[in-house]
Amino acid sequence: MSHNTFGHLFRVTTWGESHGPALGCVVDGCPPGLPLSLADIQYWLNRRAPGQNRFVTQRREPDEVKILSGVFEDDRTDGPVTTGAPISLMIENVDQRGKDYDDIRDLYRPGHADYTYDAKYGLRDYRGGGRSSARETAARVAAGAVARRILGEDIVIRAALIQIGAVAIDRAAWDWAETENNPFWCPDAGAAKLWETLLDEKRKDGNSLGAIVEVEATGVPAGWGAPIYGKLDAELAGALMSINAVKGVEIGAGFDAAPLTGVENADEMRAGAGGKPVFVTNHAGGVLGGISTGQPIVARIAIKPTSSILTARKTVDRFGHEAEISTKGRHDPCVGIRAAPVAEAMVACVLADAKLRHRGQTGN
Amino acid sequence: MSHNTFGHLFRVTTWGESHGPALGCVVDGCPPGLPLSLADIQYWLNRRAPGQNRFVTQRREPDEVKILSGVFEDDRTDGPVTTGAPISLMIENVDQRGKDYDDIRDLYRPGHADYTYDAKYGLRDYRGGGRSSARETAARVAAGAVARRILGEDIVIRAALIQIGAVAIDRAAWDWAETENNPFWCPDAGAAKLWETLLDEKRKDGNSLGAIVEVEATGVPAGWGAPIYGKLDAELAGALMSINAVKGVEIGAGFDAAPLTGVENADEMRAGAGGKPVFVTNHAGGVLGGISTGQPIVARIAIKPTSSILTARKTVDRFGHEAEISTKGRHDPCVGIRAAPVAEAMVACVLADAKLRHRGQTGN
Amino acid sequence: MSHNTFGHLFRVTTWGESHGPALGCVVDGCPPGLPLSLADIQYWLNRRAPGQNRFVTQRREPDEVKILSGVFEDDRTDGPVTTGAPISLMIENVDQRGKDYDDIRDLYRPGHADYTYDAKYGLRDYRGGGRSSARETAARVAAGAVARRILGEDIVIRAALIQIGAVAIDRAAWDWAETENNPFWCPDAGAAKLWETLLDEKRKDGNSLGAIVEVEATGVPAGWGAPIYGKLDAELAGALMSINAVKGVEIGAGFDAAPLTGVENADEMRAGAGGKPVFVTNHAGGVLGGISTGQPIVARIAIKPTSSILTARKTVDRFGHEAEISTKGRHDPCVGIRAAPVAEAMVACVLADAKLRHRGQTGN
Amino acid sequence: MSHNTFGHLFRVTTWGESHGPALGCVVDGCPPGLPLSLADIQYWLNRRAPGQNRFVTQRREPDEVKILSGVFEDDRTDGPVTTGAPISLMIENVDQRGKDYDDIRDLYRPGHADYTYDAKYGLRDYRGGGRSSARETAARVAAGAVARRILGEDIVIRAALIQIGAVAIDRAAWDWAETENNPFWCPDAGAAKLWETLLDEKRKDGNSLGAIVEVEATGVPAGWGAPIYGKLDAELAGALMSINAVKGVEIGAGFDAAPLTGVENADEMRAGAGGKPVFVTNHAGGVLGGISTGQPIVARIAIKPTSSILTARKTVDRFGHEAEISTKGRHDPCVGIRAAPVAEAMVACVLADAKLRHRGQTGN
Repeated sequence: MSHNTFGHLFRVTTWGESHGPALGCVVDGCPPGLPLSLADIQYWLNRRAPGQNRFVTQRREPDEVKILSGVFEDDRTDGPVTTGAPISLMIENVDQRGKDYDDIRDLYRPGHADYTYDAKYGLRDYRGGGRSSARETAARVAAGAVARRILGEDIVIRAALIQIGAVAIDRAAWDWAETENNPFWCPDAGAAKLWETLLDEKRKDGNSLGAIVEVEATGVPAGWGAPIYGKLDAELAGALMSINAVKGVEIGAGFDAAPLTGVENADEMRAGAGGKPVFVTNHAGGVLGGISTGQPIVARIAIKPTSSILTARKTVDRFGHEAEISTKGRHDPCVGIRAAPVAEAMVACVLADAKLRHRGQTGN
Repeated sequence: MSHNTFGHLFRVTTWGESHGPALGCVVDGCPPGLPLSLADIQYWLNRRAPGQNRFVTQRREPDEVKILSGVFEDDRTDGPVTTGAPISLMIENVDQRGKDYDDIRDLYRPGHADYTYDAKYGLRDYRGGGRSSARETAARVAAGAVARRILGEDIVIRAALIQIGAVAIDRAAWDWAETENNPFWCPDAGAAKLWETLLDEKRKDGNSLGAIVEVEATGVPAGWGAPIYGKLDAELAGALMSINAVKGVEIGAGFDAAPLTGVENADEMRAGAGGKPVFVTNHAGGVLGGISTGQPIVARIAIKPTSSILTARKTVDRFGHEAEISTKGRHDPCVGIRAAPVAEAMVACVLADAKLRHRGQTGN
Repeated sequence: MSHNTFGHLFRVTTWGESHGPALGCVVDGCPPGLPLSLADIQYWLNRRAPGQNRFVTQRREPDEVKILSGVFEDDRTDGPVTTGAPISLMIENVDQRGKDYDDIRDLYRPGHADYTYDAKYGLRDYRGGGRSSARETAARVAAGAVARRILGEDIVIRAALIQIGAVAIDRAAWDWAETENNPFWCPDAGAAKLWETLLDEKRKDGNSLGAIVEVEATGVPAGWGAPIYGKLDAELAGALMSINAVKGVEIGAGFDAAPLTGVENADEMRAGAGGKPVFVTNHAGGVLGGISTGQPIVARIAIKPTSSILTARKTVDRFGHEAEISTKGRHDPCVGIRAAPVAEAMVACVLADAKLRHRGQTGN
Repeated sequence: MSHNTFGHLFRVTTWGESHGPALGCVVDGCPPGLPLSLADIQYWLNRRAPGQNRFVTQRREPDEVKILSGVFEDDRTDGPVTTGAPISLMIENVDQRGKDYDDIRDLYRPGHADYTYDAKYGLRDYRGGGRSSARETAARVAAGAVARRILGEDIVIRAALIQIGAVAIDRAAWDWAETENNPFWCPDAGAAKLWETLLDEKRKDGNSLGAIVEVEATGVPAGWGAPIYGKLDAELAGALMSINAVKGVEIGAGFDAAPLTGVENADEMRAGAGGKPVFVTNHAGGVLGGISTGQPIVARIAIKPTSSILTARKTVDRFGHEAEISTKGRHDPCVGIRAAPVAEAMVACVLADAKLRHRGQTGN
């Protein structure tokens, strides 16, 4: 993991700014012979795409992906397949409206990377946040689509919002099917209703809210991951924390493990089919000693409220003058919503890399 | 970060098992000319050492470190200094008592990596957990001592326990000096008293408790870290999650950012000395867009209760037979206590690496 | 260095096939604030471009580069400058003639990667060699242009052909200016004449010739590179050997060092300006112990004769049938000629990476 | 490959100075369950060990290796086996004679890294060359012993000296068995005789000679290696050039490919057993497009004459004063001899890494 490249054997390098001509990624190390069409990738991008409802940014980006390399089709292949060469994916930026950002070229928006980029690089591409914009996550979702191909259909990775603001879902009401029925990836129809009201209210106030997303990966066999600095949970934590606006990552019981006793927290085992261990509970979230247990891998991330808000906040400019700023532009009242498909993608990338590394070391 | 190596320019490779002849690390990429004596490293190791009081494992390990390479002294140097060559550090295992573990060579201890190591590798060194033992963290603390030399004395990294079981400290009573006065690195003398009773009780019950540790790094200049997969908070999250028993990592407001609004969460800026921005609050925990803001870097980790407990739990053995297990051996009733110096060390390593990488790219 | 990524702090990831829609690279880790225009990059690409004379392939590729990210311009910058974000460069393939390759989709061309790609991946993009085509080197040259910006104008990297077939230049006649006057980058006008006749003859025969290229980098300060696996000469060797058709790499005296005695080979030192060591000779080729000496860095590479020839050679097809093959298409009679700008680019990338890594570790 | 770590999935980190307490390596990523005893490793170290005859340094180092981690034995394993955890190997320095080096602490020995280490680091461990000493290669040989276990017995890696000074072997007289009968790893008994006289003469003259070593790996299946920066020949070139005193690396025909025509150089293919391609010749040296062909992998390296010679050479000291220097100490009259086992080890490490990476990406 280094600057703009993620992963070891399955490696993703992303590039592009919010308001440049395009953004994209190069996916390296993909096994050969996997079916991979434009539609496979576009399907996942569409789930992240902006402009779909009033709770996400109204920027109109079709986010149409192009495959520039690494995929081949002839009459001997069953549709386009990966060749083992790097897969270059590109998404052109269409709805850029550079003008929107002229008045903030010198102002540091609180909660944004404006000041830190200037502090690091001495200059920055201020148009729409440039490289620090969440638009970069489109490239991650595209890469995640490739990762899913590597993982195959037995491994299912899905995310749900479990909290917006202070309103958490009722876990007893969890229904994965429900996540496709509301604009929040919410598995609890009741909570979704509450969130609708809540977010409308905050949006009208020129305000925003944070959220918590839960990601689950089922079907992961026991044995993936590696000690000590290749631990599956450590890689997941790094990958998920690298998503814009994420401030916390938990695996399994997470912070709720602190108040537990060792007796309560122990995931007891029983003999399952063929003598294979079955865990009675999953406080571990599917990872022990950095290696998958075969149980569902469960991670949660905390996403801070959107920093771009209409309400004026105090700040300074690059020349040291004090000022006030309210961000116009078109922004998500809760960035956590669009973080869900991105979190899925990052989990997919981590698992694909873990699968290949495990196979490399052990042959399994 | 790959298997047993951590970092990019400042790289730490650790090795060793709980009950092998020794453990250690190789620290590569250290700048030349830094003063580094045995005592410098031993000081930090002593803070992590077992056997110091009744709340940590009674294993008697002097944890005496040896410097095998990378440091040189002659009459022109002012004591031993780093040469820029890899620094090999070794700690011999003394109090091993291999016998303690004979009865669990086939049993999978709940909460331990026994099953997952077997699932991954097909065999495991079961003596004291082998490679998955928290003894490995001694090597991290040794490496952290080198990292602190790179960071210099203006950067102060310190950790405190802020919760054991369900009992949190009173943050209003926070006094760093207090962390040296109790066996818990607790900054609140009142909480320390409560924890003493609490832990004694749990220990007598053959049980254990989880904890939350907070680490703070002050003096870090703005500009360290890098987008996108080199984000400072992502590297911290990966590094901290790689510590044994850690189940969650937060930066700044962390999970408490979810219920906040954008207005509340915004860290407003004012012009400080010389026009340099000063932040009014620090919900960001010192990192924006993956780059340090110049404010204190604040991270918290959740540590699960010690899995090795005297109370019997249900499990299976490697042959698929069901069984019960209670771990004898000598274990920490709360592994969170000894996690504090380890968390400091990991933060030091991440920051040292970030410093060198930032200097490499920008020259500053 | 891993699959399609090269370098450590200065990292280049290339992608693209000979007959796909485009090829390109992502250059990561570039320092911010460096002037970088399209013209800067195009200048170097034009030197590698095909179709310029009868001694290189007649494929007509304008090799027009696009900068898709990582560069920014506003009224405060003096033209476009790097931002520190990844620089994505793309070159669209224009003159593809996919049809040319239909008859070799099943045949393994001797000297090509056809068989090995099939052996590795189980399938291959056979159009023009796909990923194994030398067209990929255009992306390296583009990346090399960025690397040169990092190195600055005091470091001059240039290559010359010193042998085609069995005809070597007369080193006494070496004139760098001459390399711009003939189609061979030949520093000896007399040799260039001989090569013209020689190559015309071989081309008419449906044959080809090998070559030797020498690359020199002057102005590199003492101290770049690092032991043991980061040695400057080791990185140069890996980088140069990775160029298509290269079969040998030498530094300084190279293979001619074998017959020398220690007395002859010793590069004696004298005190230069300000007491700084000056070397009397440069058998070392500017590198001692893997670290630059401050003298010119001198490397030579052997390039095998073009494998694509009109003369029929014996081979087999992917089904195990024996056959004969003669490659039609449009090919270089001596690929060594176009290897010269590529070798320069690779040396530039290695040095840029070495500069940043040295600065990272030592601050200089 | 970075500073003191080599490889990707199979990773070797070496440490230690010539005159420190010890040197060693950490071998990470080794597959589990491979038999690995002390004797396995010691066998290869003994072949590199100094003091065995008058043609190598008379330093008396037993080079006794210790295994500190990563290997486990109980009554269920058939002798000690790898566990998948990092294998830490240590060799203590015994015969150090630090005094020998006192008079050169300020002088820069021509051909050595004295000046460049000072230029890079501002100081150096001058005792016996410190980190730049060829003693470091003992750690490589130890790592190579592990790599051979990964490769298995079907892959045979062996090296031979084919030239000392200007005296080359007669390739028609090549007999691998002969390499065990003379102190030069010479496959031609006649040449060995000539070298004996030649080296005795040079040694008495206080002089030294260069050499050429050829390494061959047979049994490597087709398909290992990867484009573009993971090419097998590029990795071999980097690995071999990183060995002390190496100035050139060739694969297959190497520099002799330059004078060949495409017709001559083409390795034609015929249908072998089961239709599998068989190559008629092996100019390629077993690698096409960076991927193994299934033929023997053949590499050659040029080693410069030992720089430490009794004959006085001109130099300067670190203060800029001119001086003369003749190295006393105990040195090899031809370092090429002891380079042979080291070259084998590096080839083994590259191949082991390639095997694991290939398996990771493709599952084969």
